Amino acid sequence: MSFYLLLSLFVTQVLAIWPLPSSMMMGEEVLFVDRTVNFIYNGAAQVALPQPEQMPFEQDLNLFISQQGNYGHHNTSSQKVISTAIKSTTQTLFEQNFVPWKFHPRHSDFEPAMNASCNYIKTVYLKQTEADPANVTKPLAGDVDESYSLSIATNGRATITASSSIGIAHGLTTFTQLFYKHSSGAAYTPYAPVNIKDAPKFQHRGLNMDVSRAWYAPADITRMIDALAYNKFNRLHLHITDAQSWPIEIPALPMLAEKGSYREGFTYSPQTMAYIQDYGASRGVEVILEIDMPGHTSSIAYSYPELIAAFNEKDWSTYAAEPPSGTLKLNSSGVTEFLDTLFEDLLPRVLPYSSYFHTGGDEVNVNAYNLDDTVRSNDTAILQPLMQAFVDRAHTKVRAAGLTPIAWEEMLLTWNLTLGSDVVIQTWQSDEAVAQTVSKGHKALVGNYNYWYLDCGHGQWLDFYPDASQAYYPYYDYCAPLHNWRMMYAYDPLEGVPANLTHLVLGGEVHIWSEQTDPVNVDRQVWPRACAAAEVLWSGAKDEHGQNRSQITASPRLSEMRERLVARGVGAEPIQMPFCTQNGTQCAL
Amino acid sequence: MSFYLLLSLFVTQVLAIWPLPSSMMMGEEVLFVDRTVNFIYNGAAQVALPQPEQMPFEQDLNLFISQQGNYGHHNTSSQKVISTAIKSTTQTLFEQNFVPWKFHPRHSDFEPAMNASCNYIKTVYLKQTEADPANVTKPLAGDVDESYSLSIATNGRATITASSSIGIAHGLTTFTQLFYKHSSGAAYTPYAPVNIKDAPKFQHRGLNMDVSRAWYAPADITRMIDALAYNKFNRLHLHITDAQSWPIEIPALPMLAEKGSYREGFTYSPQTMAYIQDYGASRGVEVILEIDMPGHTSSIAYSYPELIAAFNEKDWSTYAAEPPSGTLKLNSSGVTEFLDTLFEDLLPRVLPYSSYFHTGGDEVNVNAYNLDDTVRSNDTAILQPLMQAFVDRAHTKVRAAGLTPIAWEEMLLTWNLTLGSDVVIQTWQSDEAVAQTVSKGHKALVGNYNYWYLDCGHGQWLDFYPDASQAYYPYYDYCAPLHNWRMMYAYDPLEGVPANLTHLVLGGEVHIWSEQTDPVNVDRQVWPRACAAAEVLWSGAKDEHGQNRSQITASPRLSEMRERLVARGVGAEPIQMPFCTQNGTQCAL
Repeated sequence: MSFYLLLSLFVTQVLAIWPLPSSMMMGEEVLFVDRTVNFIYNGAAQVALPQPEQMPFEQDLNLFISQQGNYGHHNTSSQKVISTAIKSTTQTLFEQNFVPWKFHPRHSDFEPAMNASCNYIKTVYLKQTEADPANVTKPLAGDVDESYSLSIATNGRATITASSSIGIAHGLTTFTQLFYKHSSGAAYTPYAPVNIKDAPKFQHRGLNMDVSRAWYAPADITRMIDALAYNKFNRLHLHITDAQSWPIEIPALPMLAEKGSYREGFTYSPQTMAYIQDYGASRGVEVILEIDMPGHTSSIAYSYPELIAAFNEKDWSTYAAEPPSGTLKLNSSGVTEFLDTLFEDLLPRVLPYSSYFHTGGDEVNVNAYNLDDTVRSNDTAILQPLMQAFVDRAHTKVRAAGLTPIAWEEMLLTWNLTLGSDVVIQTWQSDEAVAQTVSKGHKALVGNYNYWYLDCGHGQWLDFYPDASQAYYPYYDYCAPLHNWRMMYAYDPLEGVPANLTHLVLGGEVHIWSEQTDPVNVDRQVWPRACAAAEVLWSGAKDEHGQNRSQITASPRLSEMRERLVARGVGAEPIQMPFCTQNGTQCAL
Repeated sequence: MSFYLLLSLFVTQVLAIWPLPSSMMMGEEVLFVDRTVNFIYNGAAQVALPQPEQMPFEQDLNLFISQQGNYGHHNTSSQKVISTAIKSTTQTLFEQNFVPWKFHPRHSDFEPAMNASCNYIKTVYLKQTEADPANVTKPLAGDVDESYSLSIATNGRATITASSSIGIAHGLTTFTQLFYKHSSGAAYTPYAPVNIKDAPKFQHRGLNMDVSRAWYAPADITRMIDALAYNKFNRLHLHITDAQSWPIEIPALPMLAEKGSYREGFTYSPQTMAYIQDYGASRGVEVILEIDMPGHTSSIAYSYPELIAAFNEKDWSTYAAEPPSGTLKLNSSGVTEFLDTLFEDLLPRVLPYSSYFHTGGDEVNVNAYNLDDTVRSNDTAILQPLMQAFVDRAHTKVRAAGLTPIAWEEMLLTWNLTLGSDVVIQTWQSDEAVAQTVSKGHKALVGNYNYWYLDCGHGQWLDFYPDASQAYYPYYDYCAPLHNWRMMYAYDPLEGVPANLTHLVLGGEVHIWSEQTDPVNVDRQVWPRACAAAEVLWSGAKDEHGQNRSQITASPRLSEMRERLVARGVGAEPIQMPFCTQNGTQCAL
């Protein structure tokens, strides 16, 4: 209790643990970390891996390929999780830390003296109390206990305890967030002693990143994984193909990427994919691949035009949500063979790194099947059984490969398909969709586009002809306005879900679509607003009184998290000016 | 006429001259530029200056200081304008150019063969037909003829003709926008022969950048100047002080920045200011300083608390538009002395680089004068004569220093002050404010916040207490939503202005305020949306038929300009995905 008292008396705003732990007690004593701090994991001293972070990306990728051999079919190990987390910890503490001047009154003497304490943190004890499950780096939701506890005594003894390696990694992430850079270059915490117990509210905490509409180099994706892990997200959903480009190489179907990519070299080879998947797995971020189908597939037409109906119709709005129109034909043996080949090639390369495969299924436009020579109808009575068979085949393939299917809500709620009880439904259109999904007994992911789509609000990307222009003024996009962090933070995944069904809400995802996003602005589009979702998913949308969490305490914490992201090389936007963060609650209403 | 025909037949979308020239004829022949291209200026061969661009910023700044001596009181010369423009031209052509794959069908063979032409551009002839006016780098609106003509013959002869050095510089900017990077590293144009005649519609084309609410290093400001010049903007208005911080050093009042800056070192010394001003002047971008008063001054209270009324009141919304509240006292001899000292110190350092000084005057809150011990009233009948005297004194000082005052619209339209006919009024609240300003015979700058404020739409930066939170949901900011480029492009500075008074509209400014902007995201907040305003101000909002300009032709041009900005190190956002720019008008409605 005395720690709580100290907290409220002395530490009013500088508490940058994001997302908020389940319980947290802090003091006000200063402790520096020794530059040669070592880590003892279940009694064994650990040496941080010399790679990958210190190497330029290309070297790192090449090293990975040479070590992993053909396509890198190797599970990521628990030991790699621990080693990677330790390496990241020392890098964050000593190379990517920040001086917190923005969180103290201007020109104040806020830094502790270098001799403020006789004690140093020289060792961090990592105690894993149970053996990891075999699938610790590629779990189904709930398979891994991500909880941890963390203590730092005023004598410098620091201990992280968890039942899994992932829990240890989360504890180390939290550990780094207790420390600031001293002007001298040292790292210190002003919060000793510290006692934290922590566990996530939701099991699936993800970002969906569209790497089809714009090209992202592998380094853009691994930078995103680093930022996700630092926010305790545990899933990166790669929306890796769409109508606009097909960047993933499928060796059995080489023309797909060769012709469907935006540009030569703008493709992800199997080796590159394994590198990205392993990069995520090593950081507790399971990479889930989505091949969206049957809609959003017209980039296949560059290589296999006979498989796509309604390709790139001039009157695209009749056939698709956006240009180019096009859909896999719905009653085509050619499509079946194509997908068999695709799945048999790709899914074995997914299995080492994930337990899921996302088969898409959003925004299927029935009119496209009027132009499908295997169907010639937009009558859902005709289309629905064909769609059922299409999805059944796909999900059978996914299961045969040892994976669990994920599908967009439309397959269940719009098309009324009968889906296996294992299928996870990704909702996006409304809170009602979540309630309907769980009421049908399915596991659901949330991510209502009215709140959690990060790309909204930048205006239309369509060009309007002069005749039509005035009618579309002032050119807002379909999900405008931009969803600010406060709004995202107020979104509760359990809104409207019956109490007896909340266990079916596995968690959710924020989404970054790439109509107007590419590597130049993706960091700013995602961060720090995605942090708001990270805290909702880790800590829950409501506080201990069942109320929405207070912006007054969250805001300075988020501003500090933003500085930590910037220090780690992520171009996160500011949310308040230094005047506000330097002055407690003076920017409040 | 044959050039026009060629244009319409063969060159459908790749025409990245931004802003659009007055007239333009292009062919379809390829010409490469020789890597050792030289420039002959009125018969004399030019050597591009070895600095400043190739040097790290700090070195460059130090060199400038050592060359300029005390405070750098030296006018920028015409020769420096020419030399800087040539240097920038070669750098843009050969080091900061881009391969235009995004503007050609995917995997198409769009690049010309290296031997596509026997002719090369080996010399660019720069012909200045008149001597520059003495104030060429610090003009009042209209003092400099910025027009130019540009021709490139198929035999490789390239000529830019203008009556001023600034016109030559604009011509060189346009010149670079005709060229692409070849995969071999060479630079080529596919558009020869070229004939362009060009002149600006408006004389004042600016960006207002708030460098008080957030700290921007000098290199952030010079990067902005480079981007402005590349868009043929000719003014950078630095809103250099505000309530939140006072970063500009005033040697006669050293405590101002020492205490009012956010952090030690986060100040602009006179030498640094001279460097920035000269950097702008050399590129045709006149740097105009604003010391906003009497409101927006509470950062003075950190050093001179006796001069500020209503400083940082807890109930700030009663006294100011945003925290912290505070205003210079309105009837105080101390304030008069302070401002005399300030003006006498600062204005002589403005004079070498600008003909303007902006005295602010926006958002004065009358309630603050209830707490002003020299007034003790919020009655405008009492306040108005005092405000008249306050502004008269300030403007007298500005004029005595050889400068022309600029003031925000409120001084004229809200306070009904009698202002000298020389005073330029900066409007921001409405189109009506422009019409009212010119109807009173004043010169006006436009920049309606509903269209041309670049910071809008990112949500509230105020924190809401739990009790108030629901009432403010979904937390939009006062000028939401974000103003997209299409909307900004449709804004006409002459909207509602009587035809006989349009000559009083000097031009306008886009604005980037820094409540939620800092160096990490400023590029994305400003670019490429500010380009839309650049074209409105340079080319006019209407086309040759008096209609709004077409998005269909502007959009691919703007996408290409965006790529040019990115190649030059400016983190401009994308506005369309490559699918759209690769495919002509397929993303149009």
